Amino acid sequence: MELLKNKIQTEGRVFNDSLLKVDSFLNHQLDPQLMLKMGEEFAKRFQGEKITKILTIESSGIAVSIMAGLTINVPVVFARKKKSTVTDDFYQAKAYSFTKQETNNITVDKKFLGPADKILIIDDFLANGEAALGLANIVKQSGATVVGIGIVIEKSFQPGAQKLKDLGYRVESLARIASFANGQVNFL
Amino acid sequence: MELLKNKIQTEGRVFNDSLLKVDSFLNHQLDPQLMLKMGEEFAKRFQGEKITKILTIESSGIAVSIMAGLTINVPVVFARKKKSTVTDDFYQAKAYSFTKQETNNITVDKKFLGPADKILIIDDFLANGEAALGLANIVKQSGATVVGIGIVIEKSFQPGAQKLKDLGYRVESLARIASFANGQVNFL
Repeated sequence: MELLKNKIQTEGRVFNDSLLKVDSFLNHQLDPQLMLKMGEEFAKRFQGEKITKILTIESSGIAVSIMAGLTINVPVVFARKKKSTVTDDFYQAKAYSFTKQETNNITVDKKFLGPADKILIIDDFLANGEAALGLANIVKQSGATVVGIGIVIEKSFQPGAQKLKDLGYRVESLARIASFANGQVNFL
Repeated sequence: MELLKNKIQTEGRVFNDSLLKVDSFLNHQLDPQLMLKMGEEFAKRFQGEKITKILTIESSGIAVSIMAGLTINVPVVFARKKKSTVTDDFYQAKAYSFTKQETNNITVDKKFLGPADKILIIDDFLANGEAALGLANIVKQSGATVVGIGIVIEKSFQPGAQKLKDLGYRVESLARIASFANGQVNFL
């Protein structure tokens, strides 16, 4: 998606050849018009899939997911990184964050996913695939079907995308990064 | 806002006469069309205020804020509940959560707020006012101006709204709850 790639080129900052900060439009400050365009792009790519619900994870997946949900006209569920204070009836999975070097226990209330659901998983980044695999695990526990995984920025030089494809998931990434070199971003 | 009140009446669940769960459309599962309507309502109420940026807090404030940002056509910044892994140049404030009984250290990168900004603060709930006060504190540190505070659900029987008004802030709440009694929600 050219609009996103341009934004990454002009505003992204590369740290230590593997970490990309895009906090001016995706992770901390959010660009609403860009979120809408990306949501529409996911809707277009997964057109005809009869999606019933979008599943993402707090916090950076929420903005783009709500725009996809608006376009497709389905609810959005965001998995939590710790248990809610009230319910104890939830699906859970573990997801290790290499960036933050911590394991998140991600949870979704059982009442929001069921066997009839066709789920589009959306997340902001795909690197090692831990978050997406955790979300797919939760969908599986509920008996619902994953129709695909929509990613804003895929670091294609890390193993996540291949892992997900090897498991049979359709992965659609709006920007695919081949490498970082000398602070520059090279797209696939 | 009638649409929101109806949603609270039909889908909200009251626990122990002070806690309202609205996780089917606001806190865990999100209703994108409702988020858009609420974002438009905030835009309408704060029309003419020359807002330059919206400030909210992860995670449940993000969806409605991005819709307000889309309508007003300004960026949205969400405060984080723990420090980012890279930057160390941020504003921070403490906010105690009575629901979760924990103190959050909320942070915003300094590059996203400055003296020229006119900020609309948005949050999902207003009870004791801790989160809104923390956000207002951060805006103050940056030299920016708070033009108002937009709240989805105000628990008017708790002290937050009055505290904020006493400090001179304009508070606009889309639903104002007078009391919970026998599992029922009574609006002001």
